Amino acid sequence: MDRTEERNTDEKKLVGDSAAALVESGMVVGLGTGSTTAFAIQALGRRVDEGLDIQGIPTSYQSLLLAIEWGIPLTSLDQDPVLDIALDGADQIDANLFVIKGGGAAHTNEKIVACSSRRFVVLVDEKKMVDTLVHPVPLEVIPKALELVKRQVMELGGIPRLRMAVRKDGPVITDNGNLVVDADFGDIHDPWKLAKQLSACTGIIEHGIFDNADEVYVGMPDGTVKILKCNR
Amino acid sequence: MDRTEERNTDEKKLVGDSAAALVESGMVVGLGTGSTTAFAIQALGRRVDEGLDIQGIPTSYQSLLLAIEWGIPLTSLDQDPVLDIALDGADQIDANLFVIKGGGAAHTNEKIVACSSRRFVVLVDEKKMVDTLVHPVPLEVIPKALELVKRQVMELGGIPRLRMAVRKDGPVITDNGNLVVDADFGDIHDPWKLAKQLSACTGIIEHGIFDNADEVYVGMPDGTVKILKCNR
Repeated sequence: MDRTEERNTDEKKLVGDSAAALVESGMVVGLGTGSTTAFAIQALGRRVDEGLDIQGIPTSYQSLLLAIEWGIPLTSLDQDPVLDIALDGADQIDANLFVIKGGGAAHTNEKIVACSSRRFVVLVDEKKMVDTLVHPVPLEVIPKALELVKRQVMELGGIPRLRMAVRKDGPVITDNGNLVVDADFGDIHDPWKLAKQLSACTGIIEHGIFDNADEVYVGMPDGTVKILKCNR
Repeated sequence: MDRTEERNTDEKKLVGDSAAALVESGMVVGLGTGSTTAFAIQALGRRVDEGLDIQGIPTSYQSLLLAIEWGIPLTSLDQDPVLDIALDGADQIDANLFVIKGGGAAHTNEKIVACSSRRFVVLVDEKKMVDTLVHPVPLEVIPKALELVKRQVMELGGIPRLRMAVRKDGPVITDNGNLVVDADFGDIHDPWKLAKQLSACTGIIEHGIFDNADEVYVGMPDGTVKILKCNR
C-alpha cells in the first residue's frame, strides 16, 4: 500500500468512526455497502461490544456478512419498516448533495433502506466530491429488458454499458438477480431531471441517483471530517 | 355459463380474431396475457397452421404455454429486441386511451414487451372502457420494500392492498418473484401525472398504467369491433 492509499484509508476510517458516533442505543440502523461504510460497521461493532443496544438492517450480502462478523444484532424491513438512521457510502456527490451510488451493484437495496430511514447520512472521502456529477449512473435492469433499457438510455443522450463480472463469466448479477447497466451521460447538470427520466424508463428497477441525503460526512486530507447538510 | 357470459366470450373471440388479422408473415409478435388475448393467440395458431410465418414473444408463463399449445414459433427479446406488433388485454381503459393492466400480475413483462414493439394494440370488450380510470393500479413490488411502498402510496392519496394468492398460502408471487400491491386511488383524473409519481417511488418495479397504446380494439355487444386510435 503506497502513502496515498494509506492516507485515504485513514480518511475513510475517520469518517466511519464519526458517523458511527451518531448512533444511539435503541436505534434501528441501516448498514450500507462499500469500503467507507465498512469502517462505520466496524466502529458500531466495537460500540456494541461496549454495550450499545442497536439493531442493524444490511443493504447487501457484503454488509450482512460484515455485521455478523462484528456482532451487530440484525433485524429486517419486515419487522422494522422505519429506521432511525442509515449510513452509506457513495461513488460521487455534487455541490447540491445529489449522490450517485451503485458501484457495488447494491443501489436498489441501498435506496430502499435509505428511503425507509428518518435520517440518511452519506460517508465519503474528499475525492468523491465534485461540482457537477459526471460518474456513469448505475441502473439495475430486468434481464429481459436489457436491449430496451439500452435504447432508452441512448434516447436520453447516454452511453449504456452492461457491467461485466470479474471472477464470474458474463455480466454482474445483483443480489436481486438482475443486470447492471452503467449509463454515461457525461456532465449531469440537472440530476433531478435525469432521475425522473430514468425512473420513467421501462425495465429499470432502480437508478443510482439519490436525492435524499440529509448529511454528508467528508473525510478531508488534513485529518478532519467536514459535515455538509442538505438545504434543498 | 349464462347468456351474459356467453355473449361476452363471443365478443372477446371476435376482438381476438380481428387483432390477429393485423399480423403478417415475417413479423415478431408480442403475445400478451389474459382471456381476450388468449383468443388472439389461438387465432394466430390457426393461421400458423395455414402457413403464417411469425415468431412470438410471450409476456408470461400463461401466454408461453398457450403459444406452445397452439404451435406458434417462439423467440425472445434477447434475439429480437424490437417487435413489429404486441397484442395484449387490459383491465380498464379511459377516453384518452390510458390503460390499466396487471390483473394477471404480469404487467412488468407486458410493459417491457409493449415498449419494445413498434405497434401496441390493446384488446378488450366494451365493459373495460370508462370515461375516467377508477381501477386500482397494480404495482409490482420488491418484497423487502413492501412497507415502504405502502407508505409512499398513502402519501400519494392511495389505499394499498397486498394481493393475496388463491391456491397458494400468502401473497401472490409474480413470474419475476415479486409481490403485487393493488393501489386504489379512486377516480384517476390525471393518469399521466400518477404514472410519473409511481415511477419515482422506490421499491416499485413497475406500475400498471400504460400510456403507449397505439390502438384499442373494442368488442361491442352488437357483434362489431370498434377501433380506437391514440391521438395523444
